[in-house]
Amino acid sequence: GEGPVGCADSFGAKLDVVIDEIREAGRQGVWMRVPIAQAAAIPAAAARGFRYHHAEGDSAMLLAWLPPSASPVPDFATHVIGVGGMVLDEASHEVLVVKERVAATSTSQGSWKLPGGLVDLGEEFADGAAREVLEETGVRAAFRAILAARHQHGAAFGRDDLYMICLMAPLTTEIDFDPHEISDCRWIPLSEYYDATRATSKRQGVEENFNAFVVRNVLAACERGDDLGRLGFGSREMGSPVGYQKGVTGLTSKPTYRIYSGLSRRTASI
Amino acid sequence: GEGPVGCADSFGAKLDVVIDEIREAGRQGVWMRVPIAQAAAIPAAAARGFRYHHAEGDSAMLLAWLPPSASPVPDFATHVIGVGGMVLDEASHEVLVVKERVAATSTSQGSWKLPGGLVDLGEEFADGAAREVLEETGVRAAFRAILAARHQHGAAFGRDDLYMICLMAPLTTEIDFDPHEISDCRWIPLSEYYDATRATSKRQGVEENFNAFVVRNVLAACERGDDLGRLGFGSREMGSPVGYQKGVTGLTSKPTYRIYSGLSRRTASI
Repeated sequence: GEGPVGCADSFGAKLDVVIDEIREAGRQGVWMRVPIAQAAAIPAAAARGFRYHHAEGDSAMLLAWLPPSASPVPDFATHVIGVGGMVLDEASHEVLVVKERVAATSTSQGSWKLPGGLVDLGEEFADGAAREVLEETGVRAAFRAILAARHQHGAAFGRDDLYMICLMAPLTTEIDFDPHEISDCRWIPLSEYYDATRATSKRQGVEENFNAFVVRNVLAACERGDDLGRLGFGSREMGSPVGYQKGVTGLTSKPTYRIYSGLSRRTASI
Repeated sequence: GEGPVGCADSFGAKLDVVIDEIREAGRQGVWMRVPIAQAAAIPAAAARGFRYHHAEGDSAMLLAWLPPSASPVPDFATHVIGVGGMVLDEASHEVLVVKERVAATSTSQGSWKLPGGLVDLGEEFADGAAREVLEETGVRAAFRAILAARHQHGAAFGRDDLYMICLMAPLTTEIDFDPHEISDCRWIPLSEYYDATRATSKRQGVEENFNAFVVRNVLAACERGDDLGRLGFGSREMGSPVGYQKGVTGLTSKPTYRIYSGLSRRTASI
């Protein structure tokens, strides 16, 4: 027949021929991009071993791995990357903090936190941090360094997340916060923000959460009079090899004093 | 009718009712998980504004954003993360290098490179680096620090990639390389590997590629007699707040000497 069932039957028969040809050519995997309006073809493909590799917007990409072994094709993408902006006034040691309308976890609801958010696809970390700080607080700030990063598993949609605290220098000070996302925004002494991170750690049932860890070490660096510009990993334009787009960034460690500890997991923190 | 067309019609009519209910409840977005065997329902959903948010394996997740504004729902995942293992014998300054059977770019074909690969979903960076080194070379090595990271755009499937060079201490020295992926594997002097990275940079038409940048700085640290254990970002178990799974890792900068330069993009490298 000429209806959808007949179409699916005839699509399936054609697919059998194509898969046989590809197998005979010695190929092990077959990719198929299916526009969303043609998704009715997918069950016939699934019956022949195709599974979703990824899908976004208007199309799905399916893969059939032909050998009986597990597919070695890498996942589409495993991570989202977040950036938190520690905008620190070096003269006053005041830091820009926000309260989110709805916090990511109930235990952090109502706590002061650093402005920040997810880096967009194609965005530089430094640009993402400056954008998030500006969007949430109205303050313009310049990226200086990545101070520390936290790697977590099982975030949204089962993906992993890497969250990086970026030291930033304020270029403006006036606050004009986004009332949709943020319920309050202030410049407070770094020591006061440290107390807030310790209170949140306590509510979370951990001795010291990531933010408290980072702030404690930055506070110690301030107290020692360290040059904060020398902390962490900086950013640097790199030569872009043929075949790669522009926007290559090297995050380069810089001379630091003893800020953060931990040679390995077996070493206790300072 | 009761055939697929009739089913799709009736599914579409039901979906209209559900969307209206959701809209009236003041919700802005509607998620729909569709098993691959039921993909025939997707065109009817697409006609009502649903688009793929993501799909993996046996199911697709579709999202309809109801307001006329752009959807603020974050991408599924934006990044893959790769780890390269710089397994360095501190006494001899020999480094473990491989030649890939098929290199990622034609300009790096036949060059010595560090063993490495993509971190698996849910895997710690240190574990991923040790796994990749072992799989490719047969050498067991212990993670010490992340020395530098490179952020690139437009990698496989249009995603971004973050590639991190990990300093590792060899626990064994005997090479037993994977002949499927690797055509050669050796311990060579770090200075010889630096020459290889410079030759690759030249073929790529860049003054200094990322590997050359990192090796040049590690070589300089070796020549100064720096304690290599003090370079870069280390790894540290962090308290895991309620609601997060285990496997939380802090990458903590450690005391370093002046290894890498670049306070900002405006600062030239040393």
